[in-house]
Amino acid sequence: MKLLILNGVNLNMTGVREKSVYGSETLDDINREIEAFCKARGAECEFFQSNLEGELCTQIQQSDADGIILNAGAFTHYSYALRDAIASVKTPVVEVHMSNVHAREEFRHKSVISEVCKGTVLGFGKKSYILAAESFLI
Amino acid sequence: MKLLILNGVNLNMTGVREKSVYGSETLDDINREIEAFCKARGAECEFFQSNLEGELCTQIQQSDADGIILNAGAFTHYSYALRDAIASVKTPVVEVHMSNVHAREEFRHKSVISEVCKGTVLGFGKKSYILAAESFLI
Amino acid sequence: MKLLILNGVNLNMTGVREKSVYGSETLDDINREIEAFCKARGAECEFFQSNLEGELCTQIQQSDADGIILNAGAFTHYSYALRDAIASVKTPVVEVHMSNVHAREEFRHKSVISEVCKGTVLGFGKKSYILAAESFLI
Amino acid sequence: MKLLILNGVNLNMTGVREKSVYGSETLDDINREIEAFCKARGAECEFFQSNLEGELCTQIQQSDADGIILNAGAFTHYSYALRDAIASVKTPVVEVHMSNVHAREEFRHKSVISEVCKGTVLGFGKKSYILAAESFLI
Amino acid sequence: MKLLILNGVNLNMTGVREKSVYGSETLDDINREIEAFCKARGAECEFFQSNLEGELCTQIQQSDADGIILNAGAFTHYSYALRDAIASVKTPVVEVHMSNVHAREEFRHKSVISEVCKGTVLGFGKKSYILAAESFLI
Amino acid sequence: MKLLILNGVNLNMTGVREKSVYGSETLDDINREIEAFCKARGAECEFFQSNLEGELCTQIQQSDADGIILNAGAFTHYSYALRDAIASVKTPVVEVHMSNVHAREEFRHKSVISEVCKGTVLGFGKKSYILAAESFLI
Amino acid sequence: MKLLILNGVNLNMTGVREKSVYGSETLDDINREIEAFCKARGAECEFFQSNLEGELCTQIQQSDADGIILNAGAFTHYSYALRDAIASVKTPVVEVHMSNVHAREEFRHKSVISEVCKGTVLGFGKKSYILAAESFLI
Amino acid sequence: MKLLILNGVNLNMTGVREKSVYGSETLDDINREIEAFCKARGAECEFFQSNLEGELCTQIQQSDADGIILNAGAFTHYSYALRDAIASVKTPVVEVHMSNVHAREEFRHKSVISEVCKGTVLGFGKKSYILAAESFLI
Amino acid sequence: MKLLILNGVNLNMTGVREKSVYGSETLDDINREIEAFCKARGAECEFFQSNLEGELCTQIQQSDADGIILNAGAFTHYSYALRDAIASVKTPVVEVHMSNVHAREEFRHKSVISEVCKGTVLGFGKKSYILAAESFLI
Amino acid sequence: MKLLILNGVNLNMTGVREKSVYGSETLDDINREIEAFCKARGAECEFFQSNLEGELCTQIQQSDADGIILNAGAFTHYSYALRDAIASVKTPVVEVHMSNVHAREEFRHKSVISEVCKGTVLGFGKKSYILAAESFLI
Amino acid sequence: MKLLILNGVNLNMTGVREKSVYGSETLDDINREIEAFCKARGAECEFFQSNLEGELCTQIQQSDADGIILNAGAFTHYSYALRDAIASVKTPVVEVHMSNVHAREEFRHKSVISEVCKGTVLGFGKKSYILAAESFLI
Amino acid sequence: MKLLILNGVNLNMTGVREKSVYGSETLDDINREIEAFCKARGAECEFFQSNLEGELCTQIQQSDADGIILNAGAFTHYSYALRDAIASVKTPVVEVHMSNVHAREEFRHKSVISEVCKGTVLGFGKKSYILAAESFLI
Repeated sequence: MKLLILNGVNLNMTGVREKSVYGSETLDDINREIEAFCKARGAECEFFQSNLEGELCTQIQQSDADGIILNAGAFTHYSYALRDAIASVKTPVVEVHMSNVHAREEFRHKSVISEVCKGTVLGFGKKSYILAAESFLI
Repeated sequence: MKLLILNGVNLNMTGVREKSVYGSETLDDINREIEAFCKARGAECEFFQSNLEGELCTQIQQSDADGIILNAGAFTHYSYALRDAIASVKTPVVEVHMSNVHAREEFRHKSVISEVCKGTVLGFGKKSYILAAESFLI
Repeated sequence: MKLLILNGVNLNMTGVREKSVYGSETLDDINREIEAFCKARGAECEFFQSNLEGELCTQIQQSDADGIILNAGAFTHYSYALRDAIASVKTPVVEVHMSNVHAREEFRHKSVISEVCKGTVLGFGKKSYILAAESFLI
Repeated sequence: MKLLILNGVNLNMTGVREKSVYGSETLDDINREIEAFCKARGAECEFFQSNLEGELCTQIQQSDADGIILNAGAFTHYSYALRDAIASVKTPVVEVHMSNVHAREEFRHKSVISEVCKGTVLGFGKKSYILAAESFLI
Repeated sequence: MKLLILNGVNLNMTGVREKSVYGSETLDDINREIEAFCKARGAECEFFQSNLEGELCTQIQQSDADGIILNAGAFTHYSYALRDAIASVKTPVVEVHMSNVHAREEFRHKSVISEVCKGTVLGFGKKSYILAAESFLI
Repeated sequence: MKLLILNGVNLNMTGVREKSVYGSETLDDINREIEAFCKARGAECEFFQSNLEGELCTQIQQSDADGIILNAGAFTHYSYALRDAIASVKTPVVEVHMSNVHAREEFRHKSVISEVCKGTVLGFGKKSYILAAESFLI
Repeated sequence: MKLLILNGVNLNMTGVREKSVYGSETLDDINREIEAFCKARGAECEFFQSNLEGELCTQIQQSDADGIILNAGAFTHYSYALRDAIASVKTPVVEVHMSNVHAREEFRHKSVISEVCKGTVLGFGKKSYILAAESFLI
Repeated sequence: MKLLILNGVNLNMTGVREKSVYGSETLDDINREIEAFCKARGAECEFFQSNLEGELCTQIQQSDADGIILNAGAFTHYSYALRDAIASVKTPVVEVHMSNVHAREEFRHKSVISEVCKGTVLGFGKKSYILAAESFLI
Repeated sequence: MKLLILNGVNLNMTGVREKSVYGSETLDDINREIEAFCKARGAECEFFQSNLEGELCTQIQQSDADGIILNAGAFTHYSYALRDAIASVKTPVVEVHMSNVHAREEFRHKSVISEVCKGTVLGFGKKSYILAAESFLI
Repeated sequence: MKLLILNGVNLNMTGVREKSVYGSETLDDINREIEAFCKARGAECEFFQSNLEGELCTQIQQSDADGIILNAGAFTHYSYALRDAIASVKTPVVEVHMSNVHAREEFRHKSVISEVCKGTVLGFGKKSYILAAESFLI
Repeated sequence: MKLLILNGVNLNMTGVREKSVYGSETLDDINREIEAFCKARGAECEFFQSNLEGELCTQIQQSDADGIILNAGAFTHYSYALRDAIASVKTPVVEVHMSNVHAREEFRHKSVISEVCKGTVLGFGKKSYILAAESFLI
Repeated sequence: MKLLILNGVNLNMTGVREKSVYGSETLDDINREIEAFCKARGAECEFFQSNLEGELCTQIQQSDADGIILNAGAFTHYSYALRDAIASVKTPVVEVHMSNVHAREEFRHKSVISEVCKGTVLGFGKKSYILAAESFLI
């Protein structure tokens, strides 16, 4: 089994940006942990981050992974382009957020991609990714 | 570690009600699986289901568990009473839904409890409970 | 054929409460009339009233009637729990209201259960129940 | 007792249009059944159908019936003209719909005439008319 | 100068319908008063009433009057057809209402024709027509 | 009969401000015309203009006129204080606007005082005042 | 192949009304062009215009054309009656507008018939009809 | 005079829950103070708390008190059942809140019971109850 | 302790205006009662009423009272100026209304000052002031 | 004459994605058909597709075509950037959609670019492009 | 060049009120700085502050300055009177706010005067005034 | 001190696009003026423009400037990605618009980035940039 961990806009700032919200580990630190977890379960991982909405769409379209774990960042709240990209492929996509978006600004309460994702895991910090990976493995 | 798995209104109908949405396992079947999973991880489980909103509040108030996994059913969408009960205790509460509520009727897109929960896991069928339990154990 | 006549919150006050709206017959008086009507048609009746939303859900879940006539009272306007209970059973449910709810306060214009009921009869006073019963018998 | 059964726009297409929703009996078939039912109860019936909103208003204004049974079709959702016509006469008007309008498109959930009608019967197919007639006879 | 006094749906019921709102004079009584007033001022009057929205549009399109006084009745609140008819002619149109529509039901607070009319006179009973006529004569 | 012509905020700028909308006559010019008209009809006039909402309220409270003609200017759209002042006296108040407020910005479409006024005359330029005066005299 | 070109309320004023929006050709001029275009393609045309919503519904119900080209005029924005008429027949209906309705008043941005039409062509002046005809012929 | 002090869902957690909002006195402590205050004024007190909406309705229906002081907790914001219970009895009900609900979350700004209560006292901590009691005694 | 009793627009009409809502005592009558009550409790009172929003702001800014009791009248519903004045001082302000504003027109349900006041007392007629005073004294 | 056929995000998935909606021809297949059609009419075609919103804006800015045919995909519903790009050039832009967007999800009913386009063609599958091309050629 | 610096309601409390938001300099301190800045640039200044909305309108109407710098305080959010005063004069008005109003309460996000002002400067503390002055001088 | 002047989508069209709104100077012309102004003040400038939302985010993330002046163009109204990028860095960002966006289309009245910017300068044409630069220099 191969999983694609896809991170959207500004997530390259994780560990830099608002540490009180996201902790001080960088995206690379987190990715290494996800990789270790997956490897231990016999699964393979790919990682991709982009600040460009269209590149994320292209990744989703072209991925040969068995599952996609997507933290779309702020695109979550308005990118119908990502929504259509997800709907256009058979690969199941799990939406993740590190923070509890429902406990933050009003605009973060609405996700335009949830409807076409398989499921959502949010609020567990970096563990959100691990749980999303687990959802493909159990 | 002790976990309380709390199921709200109509979840006693799981495995009976709309099987295309929830599958055909009963709540008891699912609870046994959760219990096995927890035991294997060295955690203890308690289970409670009620159709009465107030009884669920009381359970949350009185629980001595280290974490609560709550599938509030339809109460999710309007029970500010449950929300206040969750906010009144220190025990972390994880919100779960078996179905992807965002792919169903409009009224299910709004959760009045998410803001005061630690996190949310939704869309993975009975595995939603397992992943929620995992969130306390990893 | 067996019918369950289910009355929700505050309907035990019928004949007491706001007589200008509901008339002065008590719920028992009305139930006796419904029973007489059904018996004359060869049908059997059961009656249940509760102020507790969860008990009404349980009644719907457990009923072995061929049809349910439900006056949910104020629960009509916000109880998604009742809605899910109705949707979880095969028994057809007919929604009734004694008053013309559309000629009263704004909040009474919205019913969250209509969509999952078979039909609605409203505005005919106690005759709303009789007509709902008739709907199962003709 | 004389009843006027008034059908609005497109109801002349009943039995032709979307049979999965309305069944395959024509409006004439249904009217004959209503007539038979009323005759058996000693009541007289008149029938009128029009695609013209203004003609329906005129019928309501000029009717000498003791009661009017009105299926306004799509006019239900925006014809304040019909609403005013109903309010301008003393004859009680019962609103009927064959389908459960609350289980269909959003725009069908709002009736602008309910407030000025005596009551509403909806969701019972052609039996909606019979029950509405019954409401005048019991 | 020639004026067309155009009355819309249900205004043929004036003097019959809800007398507490509109008084007991019929539309003919009122028209005679308007005529007398206009004649005294040296102006000519034409009168037309219809329950059919389309006929009112046609009257507006074909009128050779110097001014139109329009009480559109309930059409006021949703007839974009009337609005377009008014906008399609050069003849100035004055909107009148006998009652103070802003002191009645919410739906009567919105007029879809006001924007394309020259002005509005409302709330003066039958005198609304006289004042509207006066607006063309002073 | 005595009439009070009450002008609100910025109406002292009439004839100065946006002449394309209001023409080039000043408020004094207009008041002299109203006075002449009233005198010819045997009625007496008083005039008051203020940019202070509270002073307009006080004028309404203390007026001994038989009728008040009120152009509240921008206060029309939010001054619940004026609304309450009008409702607190028995003197009938007629709302006037020189321009057709419904053909201007969205915020001018809503009047918070219409409901408690006797009637409204709008869109006839300075003639709006004359017609309002006429409404007390015919 | 036979096409019905159906024009709604006020479209008989085309070439008269607001020429800056619609040009100065009359509806007859336009219809002759459509006819010539269709004839050249071997298709037959019928034309019908009415200011009466109900007559348009009847035309749609009774048409034996292979396709209907409908410019409903202002009815586009509120006539659920037309919508139901379109939905009640198998004949494909193409919605056309001469002007770009989205660049005009807010109320013209919403079409209640688009959902049940096959497609929409708007903004090309009289060419909108030609393109709609073409849609049936290519 | 007898007063019923009725506390709704989660108020049994007072003194435990969010002490920064409600202080650290328990509901029993507060009730004893109310009792002392009433006794000093010659009035009698009864106390009832429940997490069950329906039980609160039943208490209101069956109370023989001369006045009811109701802190409905979160039910305040959605329980039309409580609203109807209050409206169904002659006993005057005073709504109280310890915190200033208008300075908290948006959902707490709306009370569905205020309209049918005699009055409201909010924001004074435990003194809100005392002032409500005073309202019956002065 | 010194209290400032501040009354806003139109409250000088108390005892004159809509007596069915406010009773027939004048503001002076009420103020004398408040004064007597305060004196009996050893507190001093000051009274100020104005129809001018800005003067009320100035009073709040300049007051040296220990507490302010404010009935802002219609300003309650839109005066963000008053809100800012209240927020700009340390003196606690209690909002009062004689009538139950939630049982009156929709626009009275919203208070823009509640959020920055200490608390609210409403619905008890002139006793609302007494209870507000009491809130400072117990 | 030269036309630019511009396709936005995910349209490279045409013929792959949701075939029930878009058919099984690829974008290249469709482009070849458009090219053949244009060539037959003596017009030249250019084709560009991108998943990047900004690249589409740049294409519009730099195009030397006589007309642009734009299927913006999901960008249609939120890209004010595209809207501004269209408004910033003199080249007429025709908006096309293959599916009837008004018969799909609610969010697809709103186009933020329609207002600044010349016209819209939607619902005719690949023929939407042909008809849009035709709009420049007839 | 002469500039009028106009400050609205509660701005006389600057340096007193919520110092964390506005700093501790008084309005006089700030005005002296603005004056120094202007003098250095060869411009003249006038200063006016009022808590009365109508007085601010009058100032705008009567000013002979070449430019007005307006901090309307809370009036910004609802005073259509100020808006009309600004629109009624030719003098350009620049709107300023010391705080970033968009980072404060929701009601402060809407300015009803922005549309008729030349421009807006906000968020720079007392420097907002200086930059606004600069806008007239560079 | 170093400033980054960041221009978003379509601003490369300045001086080309809608000259009546933005004037005829190109972005390069404007940038040269800003540079001259800054140099005169002893500050250094960098310039970047992109039509790609993600590239703007990256610029903000990577900038080593002391302040950023951002004209986000149409991204202002929906790019939560830009908002998060701004929030993720310590560098203060000043939002500028050349036109008065509040006097243009409705959608331009909402900025999703204002809340996280230090301040806003809008409506002064190219001088908006100069004033924004000044805000960092005085």
